[in-house]
Amino acid sequence: MIRIALDVMGGDNAPAVEIEGVSRALAELGEDVLIQLVGLPSVIEAELARHPELDRSRVEIVEATEVIGQADKPLVAIRRKQNSSIVLGLGLQKAGKSDAFVSSGNTGAILAASTLLLRLHSGVERATVATPFPTADRPVVVLDGGANVDCSPRELQSFAYLGSVYVRDILRVAEPVVGLLNIGEEDEKGNAVTKEAHRLLQESDGLNYIGNIEGNDMIAGHSKFGHVDVVVCDGFVGNIVLKFYESVARLVLRLVKDNAPDILERDDVQEVFRVLDYSQYGGAPLLGVKGVVIICHGSSSANAIKNALRVAVQAVEAGLSDHIAATFSAREAASQA
Amino acid sequence: MIRIALDVMGGDNAPAVEIEGVSRALAELGEDVLIQLVGLPSVIEAELARHPELDRSRVEIVEATEVIGQADKPLVAIRRKQNSSIVLGLGLQKAGKSDAFVSSGNTGAILAASTLLLRLHSGVERATVATPFPTADRPVVVLDGGANVDCSPRELQSFAYLGSVYVRDILRVAEPVVGLLNIGEEDEKGNAVTKEAHRLLQESDGLNYIGNIEGNDMIAGHSKFGHVDVVVCDGFVGNIVLKFYESVARLVLRLVKDNAPDILERDDVQEVFRVLDYSQYGGAPLLGVKGVVIICHGSSSANAIKNALRVAVQAVEAGLSDHIAATFSAREAASQA
Repeated sequence: MIRIALDVMGGDNAPAVEIEGVSRALAELGEDVLIQLVGLPSVIEAELARHPELDRSRVEIVEATEVIGQADKPLVAIRRKQNSSIVLGLGLQKAGKSDAFVSSGNTGAILAASTLLLRLHSGVERATVATPFPTADRPVVVLDGGANVDCSPRELQSFAYLGSVYVRDILRVAEPVVGLLNIGEEDEKGNAVTKEAHRLLQESDGLNYIGNIEGNDMIAGHSKFGHVDVVVCDGFVGNIVLKFYESVARLVLRLVKDNAPDILERDDVQEVFRVLDYSQYGGAPLLGVKGVVIICHGSSSANAIKNALRVAVQAVEAGLSDHIAATFSAREAASQA
Repeated sequence: MIRIALDVMGGDNAPAVEIEGVSRALAELGEDVLIQLVGLPSVIEAELARHPELDRSRVEIVEATEVIGQADKPLVAIRRKQNSSIVLGLGLQKAGKSDAFVSSGNTGAILAASTLLLRLHSGVERATVATPFPTADRPVVVLDGGANVDCSPRELQSFAYLGSVYVRDILRVAEPVVGLLNIGEEDEKGNAVTKEAHRLLQESDGLNYIGNIEGNDMIAGHSKFGHVDVVVCDGFVGNIVLKFYESVARLVLRLVKDNAPDILERDDVQEVFRVLDYSQYGGAPLLGVKGVVIICHGSSSANAIKNALRVAVQAVEAGLSDHIAATFSAREAASQA
């Protein structure tokens, strides 16, 4: 049995898209998956009533009477709102009563509560959000995606390891290619942090590090490096590029609507927009904590929730958290030898 | 008479695209514009021979026997290569024999040589590259576009003034809206530099500052702020977002080619790609130096060169450099009052 706790109260359109996402996920996921719906039972029941197709034996309601809002200050909120869906949902995992947590709530609060409740794997200095970017081929994983504004060179180095484990386990790439996002390929390019991070990454064992990459090397198929699987950067740059990418997809859609609206009805053209659409990627894993946590966009669609639930199941099945523990304990052992 | 010096040796496809660009520019620009072709006369003559349509009375060859390559170290190169097209082209402007300089050569060398030869306007701490981003409406000007990796809050503040003057003079927007690129709108968001820059910008007179903006607010029509004209950031972030944008346009083209190649022949669909195409914007002005300098992408097309020449003419006609001088001397006077 795989038990996935879903924060039903977190997103901008909660709980409607969450429950719709659960319904779609159950149609695709194995019979051994149980979804734990964390939130206000009355609200959840009302929404479930609109989904007669949903198999009630495969969901469980976990009462949470409080909600942490997007505007709440993370540390204050998780201390004061002990009965919130975020604190209780993660509490289930800490207590061994759940295997993963999925939420489209306040990212800072999820990050803080995960770090406090689940704790970091030994050797990991900071948890990081790994954001998948859509490309014409498989997604590129960018980390940090916005959780950590300023990062030390050593933190960036550990993001490279975390991202590599994730890509191996979830995207099934045996030797993930890692690049450091910078403003030029040469060793001397960048700011003080990227220069030092580049040096550390060049010396890192067990990574397939190809060096500094530029903004135009991130999206597959156009880089001289071929496909880069893991893009390492601080959360300031990662967040800006991520949000910018979303807006470019909307710009392209608007330009097509303005200029050639008739082609939007064609299946082959819709396929182009499907690739550019974030919602199919679902969620961004929070890596480095002991457990499985998937963070979704506040404005996630039902499809995004469905995919986030699927990624959570994959992460549990693959043993992602154990693999991260093993990677970092091997690094510690090597550095002591 | 407006005299524009063009570095004919700088780009990846020099001098063919440069001369083709001159030919196209002369067909559009007024009769009072003279283009000074700076480079190896024999190479220029050979290329001109392929353009019988080009009116030779409107161009002038200025001999430069050396070329600064993209891989050359800027400061070393401009000291050692005194006969390079960059040093001699800017030297013309310093000597009062030219009104503007356009080059698709080594950006660092153009920046260094411009600062040394033309010097900065009083009150400007650093010259900055203002990069126009295409949008569905008028372009958004992003600065710094990659010239200055780390920037102080005060430098970011001065970029806001420089960008505003440019948008007023070249894009003819009376009250350019300025935003600071950040990872959230709230005052406390960002790193130490953006927090302090935000505070300085809020206190700045004569700016239409709307506050922190996010990555998805950069492209017009989708921001809650409406159109943002001037986006302020350091050159590390600016360079990465700029290059990323270029690659998204190529990704969309590839996706359409893979999925619906027939629509590419339609004029209305080509219009979509024309908007996403950087080459129509031509060049990025180097702002803050006494004079007019336009930096083009190394891989500029003939159209990009043509447009860069047009922007150079507009900047001279509008009195851009004088307006920047006036803006910064007014700031100095106000701070002393």
